[in-house]
Amino acid sequence: MSTIPTHPRFISLEGGEGAGKSTALASLREALQRHGHDVVLTREPGGTPLAEQIRALMLDNREALRGEVEAEPLAAETELLLVFAARAQHVRQVVLPALERGAFVVSDRFTDSSYAYQGDGRGLDPDWIAELERRAVGLRPGLTLLLDLDVREGRARTSGRDLWPDRIESEQDEFFERVRAGFRRRAEAEPERFRVIDASRSPAEVGAAVAAAVEAFLAEQGR
Amino acid sequence: MSTIPTHPRFISLEGGEGAGKSTALASLREALQRHGHDVVLTREPGGTPLAEQIRALMLDNREALRGEVEAEPLAAETELLLVFAARAQHVRQVVLPALERGAFVVSDRFTDSSYAYQGDGRGLDPDWIAELERRAVGLRPGLTLLLDLDVREGRARTSGRDLWPDRIESEQDEFFERVRAGFRRRAEAEPERFRVIDASRSPAEVGAAVAAAVEAFLAEQGR
Repeated sequence: MSTIPTHPRFISLEGGEGAGKSTALASLREALQRHGHDVVLTREPGGTPLAEQIRALMLDNREALRGEVEAEPLAAETELLLVFAARAQHVRQVVLPALERGAFVVSDRFTDSSYAYQGDGRGLDPDWIAELERRAVGLRPGLTLLLDLDVREGRARTSGRDLWPDRIESEQDEFFERVRAGFRRRAEAEPERFRVIDASRSPAEVGAAVAAAVEAFLAEQGR
Repeated sequence: MSTIPTHPRFISLEGGEGAGKSTALASLREALQRHGHDVVLTREPGGTPLAEQIRALMLDNREALRGEVEAEPLAAETELLLVFAARAQHVRQVVLPALERGAFVVSDRFTDSSYAYQGDGRGLDPDWIAELERRAVGLRPGLTLLLDLDVREGRARTSGRDLWPDRIESEQDEFFERVRAGFRRRAEAEPERFRVIDASRSPAEVGAAVAAAVEAFLAEQGR
């Protein structure tokens, strides 16, 4: 359904707030390393010094929270273009060079997050996002693990953790419901790429499910 | 030839390095103020606090010049997306609100610069730029003044001024020749919007030509 090529050594992890991505990432890396693979762990938005600076511009909400100055609202279009600017840099500086030298790349979020957050969440046209993906990215993971979790459950887990919630974290539940629905719809549309992991379980159980999904993915490839 | 609407109180000034944009901007503002118009002077990339931060990310070249760290190269695609992120913000925060309250907006550079620098200069597909213009900007100036100048003449004028040339200023003459040709081609394609000003003359003469072009533009509109 997509003309954008996938790469068999490129894996992304997606999911909402509080879904346990950090634990899952560690489990993912361990599973790959057990098979002797070189693993580059990276994240979005970010992954390069410049892309991390773009991330900071996009997410920083402290001025508004402090109320010291009248904070400049970030237009949805600006947010989308910033996240793709960071991604264009990340792909060229980190993802492609690592894949070319034979490593596995594990990215904490990738383009699916833009469809979910800026598309379903902010209401921007998915055709525009598809055009940006084609022009600025040109690559999809071979495997995407979606940590799926009830929105209120996820937010309850992170409450207290975020003294300074960023621009995304400051959104309301309805926003995150749209994001979750967007992720699930994408997973249904591309079952060959997505594995949906029930993230309502304990971190250990989620970690085991992530490892099992990676093992199955490697076995399919004969690695 | 374009479906993007122009606004009769929106004026942009374009031109290469050393073409005398600062003097021309002052002359432009004076001409409008003589007619009693409220004028908002702004610039790109930038024009809002956030867009100015994006500008800094995009242009800052000091790390590379100092040689202290291995500078991260900025991908052409990243540059294009950053400049349109800044523009999306600038249009929504500054340009449209000022036009809506009846002011004239004079922008030091606007979307034509993206076609010239990122399109002709960096070789990115103009169809992509047109898509970004349509999606993220949706507005063109009613009048665009192009200060046209021989590339070597312009660079001779700025030499010594730039102790820390930015990423664009650090380009070679061939880059600026492509940019100049791109601007001239756009001016030929849209003669109703563009006025080409010969910038090889003295600042006073260029200022007078700018003022005359603005006077003619106002007269056409019956202002």
